[in-house]
Formats: sequence, structure tokens, C-alpha cells
Amino acid sequence: MKVAVIQLNSRQDKQHNLKKIERFIREAATAGAELVSLPENCNFLGQDAEKIHSAEEIPTGQTTQLFQQLAKELNLFIHVGSITEPYSDTKSYNTSYVVFPDGELSRRYRKIHLFDIDIPGVSTHKESDFFEAGSTLETVELPFGKAGLSICYDLRFPELYRQYVKQGAKILFVPAAFTRYTGMLHWESLLRARAIENQCYVIAAGQHGTYHPGKECFGNSMIIDPWGVVVARASEEEGVTIADLKSELVESARSNIPALTHTRNDVY
Amino acid sequence: MKVAVIQLNSRQDKQHNLKKIERFIREAATAGAELVSLPENCNFLGQDAEKIHSAEEIPTGQTTQLFQQLAKELNLFIHVGSITEPYSDTKSYNTSYVVFPDGELSRRYRKIHLFDIDIPGVSTHKESDFFEAGSTLETVELPFGKAGLSICYDLRFPELYRQYVKQGAKILFVPAAFTRYTGMLHWESLLRARAIENQCYVIAAGQHGTYHPGKECFGNSMIIDPWGVVVARASEEEGVTIADLKSELVESARSNIPALTHTRNDVY
Repeated sequence: MKVAVIQLNSRQDKQHNLKKIERFIREAATAGAELVSLPENCNFLGQDAEKIHSAEEIPTGQTTQLFQQLAKELNLFIHVGSITEPYSDTKSYNTSYVVFPDGELSRRYRKIHLFDIDIPGVSTHKESDFFEAGSTLETVELPFGKAGLSICYDLRFPELYRQYVKQGAKILFVPAAFTRYTGMLHWESLLRARAIENQCYVIAAGQHGTYHPGKECFGNSMIIDPWGVVVARASEEEGVTIADLKSELVESARSNIPALTHTRNDVY
Repeated sequence: MKVAVIQLNSRQDKQHNLKKIERFIREAATAGAELVSLPENCNFLGQDAEKIHSAEEIPTGQTTQLFQQLAKELNLFIHVGSITEPYSDTKSYNTSYVVFPDGELSRRYRKIHLFDIDIPGVSTHKESDFFEAGSTLETVELPFGKAGLSICYDLRFPELYRQYVKQGAKILFVPAAFTRYTGMLHWESLLRARAIENQCYVIAAGQHGTYHPGKECFGNSMIIDPWGVVVARASEEEGVTIADLKSELVESARSNIPALTHTRNDVY
């Protein structure tokens, strides 16, 4: 299955973001992509407090409507890394889902682990002030196999991905808007570890560059194979990066190093 | 706490291996190390079938006796990455423990996940033909804080280290004899991920180089801080590599990115 990750530098102008996304999705389709994966906050990226103003109902909102139309027209799967979904007057969900080529939607994954960090002088976020955490794991059946949904900060929690692989996942989605600082330190190591320990493809579309004064994302969108090899990596700009997922690599990893059959749930 | 990892190219001559280890421990002590960490199979590295002939009772065997004497004389902690311990007429344990400066021993950790892999044409091992798996996690109280014991292939199982961090670990030991092939692909990513996701120091002493025709270890012994930074790495030879563990890095990682308080055991 040919997969495109779309690296974005989304800002606070939703119409502009959506036009750009449409252009990149069409470019990916022309290049033969059967699935395109978008980053977290694909249609609006600003400060956490601003995001509620971009919230849209799913599927009736403008963004989902556009993606349904494009998925049908171009006959591809669109993994919507996340958009902001209404929850209450003061809080939203950070929600991820897949649009199928027939325009139908997968179940929605609402980000489970909210990004509450404080690195003095570098990066302070309290996503939980503005967002409500989800409480259910969600997988999606794709032609390549089952995929587990997650978003950004979830990456720090190996338990989540272990559940997905127990449920039969062969793909792990990790769309993100990783900060530049934590990205430099942690992004690639954690993504590769999730691929290696779960012997899954990891598809990680990221936001890149400055989206607000002093707020910068790390980019480095990548596709990692079940052996942990980075098989595609975006350059330092917005754009489409493509890799061909190979079932035989899932099979060889799992048969050569059958670690998934060696877990010792009796002892931990 | 000043820690030395000792990278070895142990072979099938136990007396030679022990002499070399003693020399490196003395060198580390002279350099001010308060704890030295040795790789898996430190006193004998051969094919799995040969290891039973090197098995020693703990603490009465020659190796433990030597380490007790050295720990007392040099007033340091010795982390014995592993030696082969008798189990039955046909099987052994792959056993790790710490010798304290007063000569006392910690509880023994017996490798839980045995290395049964088959990468055709590259690397085939069936450790479980010759070894009995352990069934208990073991931590050790060190002046720096609690340390969790593991060995080599255990590294692929994030569950184990999550248990250790829940038990209060600030250090994770991962002594190894990682194969060159899987080491190139997986060693550093997995070690760094265990440090990052658990916000612990990772101390990983490895075997290096060819120990038997066609059998080569990856080396790259390292000490990784709780931010995931590799603060010391061995060069391509045997020897002593030292780093100073800093409590404030455990504290800053855990307070700046309080991910350990964000786990959602209600949902996975």
C-alpha cells in the first residue's frame, strides 16, 4: 500500500490551511498514494486557547465534508491526524479519524493523554485546560491491515501501542505537532521504538515550523518499517513524502524475531 | 554517582576473562567510579550450548567470590550483567545481580525473556533450549535510588521497565550481548526510548566484537540520561566508559514532562 505523509505548517487561517491540504492530497493522489496521512491540528494550529474557535462537528463540519468529497473523488483513504471537535462551551476534543474511499468515516479517536508540560524557558502547554481527554482506543481496518490511532503526546505511553498490537494492528498512526525542543530529544527514538517493539509500520505526519511567535514544531514526518528503519522522511518544509508499505516486512520481523509471542504477562 | 560501564569481548577462557575484568574494575575504581556495570555473560561468552560448562553457584562460585573481594577492597558496587547459574543437568539460568561494597549480594534477577530468534543467514539463537526463564522482577537499592534489573533481549518488552518505574526505579540496567545485526537496527533506539518514556537513567554495558566464528556483538555500551541523551558511549574496543549520574536530571525530566503521572491505566 502506497502511503503519503503530508507535512504541514498550519496556522490560524483555516481556509488557507484547507486549500493547502487539498493541493497536497491531490499531489499525493497523482503520485499514486492510496492513503494520505495528515498531522495533528491539520486544519487549524494556534495556541491551545484559540483552538475552540475552530471546532467543527464531525461529519457535518466543513473539514470533514471536504475530506469526504476528496476521498471519493480520488478513491483514497484520508487519515485526519486531528481536528478540534466540540465538547462543551469551554472544552473540545482533539479528534482523529479515517475517511474511507466511499466517504464513510471510521470511529473517532479522541486523544487520551493530554499535553501538560512545563519546561521553563522552553515550552509550556496545558492542553487539559482547553481539551477533554478521550477514554477509548480505536482501530481502523485498512486494506493493508488493522491500524491503531493515537495523537502526538500519546507516543510517550508504550501501553497504548501494546494494546493496539494485541488487537492485531500492523500500522500505528502517530500524527503530531511535536515541539521543536522535545522533538529533537525524543521524536525519532520513540517512533522507532514503537515500530521495533510492536513490529508495526509507524506513520507519523508532523507539523513543521513556526505557527505562532515562539511556538515551533519539529517536522521530521516519517514512515518507519517494522524493523525500525526510517523508510521515508520529510525534508525541512511542507509537502508530500511517500513510501510503499510491504506486508512481507511485517511478516519477516514477526517470524524472525517472534518477540510478540514472548511477552510474559504472567510476570508483569 | 559516578558510574563506569565496562565493555568486554569475553571469550571461552574464563580465567582470562576474569583477569581482564579485574583489571578494568581496578581502572574504573582509580578513575573514581562508585559503581561498575558489566555486560551479559561477562565471565564466559560462547555458543549457548557451551555456557552450561561455565555455570557457577552464587555466591560460592569463583566469579562471585572475586567480585565480592573486589567490591570490598575497592569500596564500590559491582553490577554483574550476567553469569550462567546452574538450574538442572541440561539447563541454566542467565543471572544478574549486584555486589555491594560490604560484599553482600542483591537478590538475583534471572532473565525473563529468552532470546529465541531466527533471522535466516544472519543470526539464529534458541536460548530456551539451554536456559530456564526467570519469573520475577528484581530491583536493587543504590545510593542514587532504586535500580531495575534486566538482561539484553528483555529490552524489547516495555512492560518490564514500566513495572520497574512504577516500583520507583530511577535506574534501568540493560547489560547485553546484542548481536551486531540487531544491534545496528535496534539497540540505541530501544535504549533511548526506555530512558525517555520512564525518565530513568539507562546503564547498558555490552559485549563487543567477535567471540566465536560468525558470532559478533554490537558493543556501543552506553549511559543514557532521563532526557534520552546518550551521555557516555564506549568506542569500538574493550574498556571503561564513565559518566556522572545527576539526580537533578531525573527530577527535571519528571517535573517538566510529568508523563509518569499521565498514564491512563483506566483505558489500556
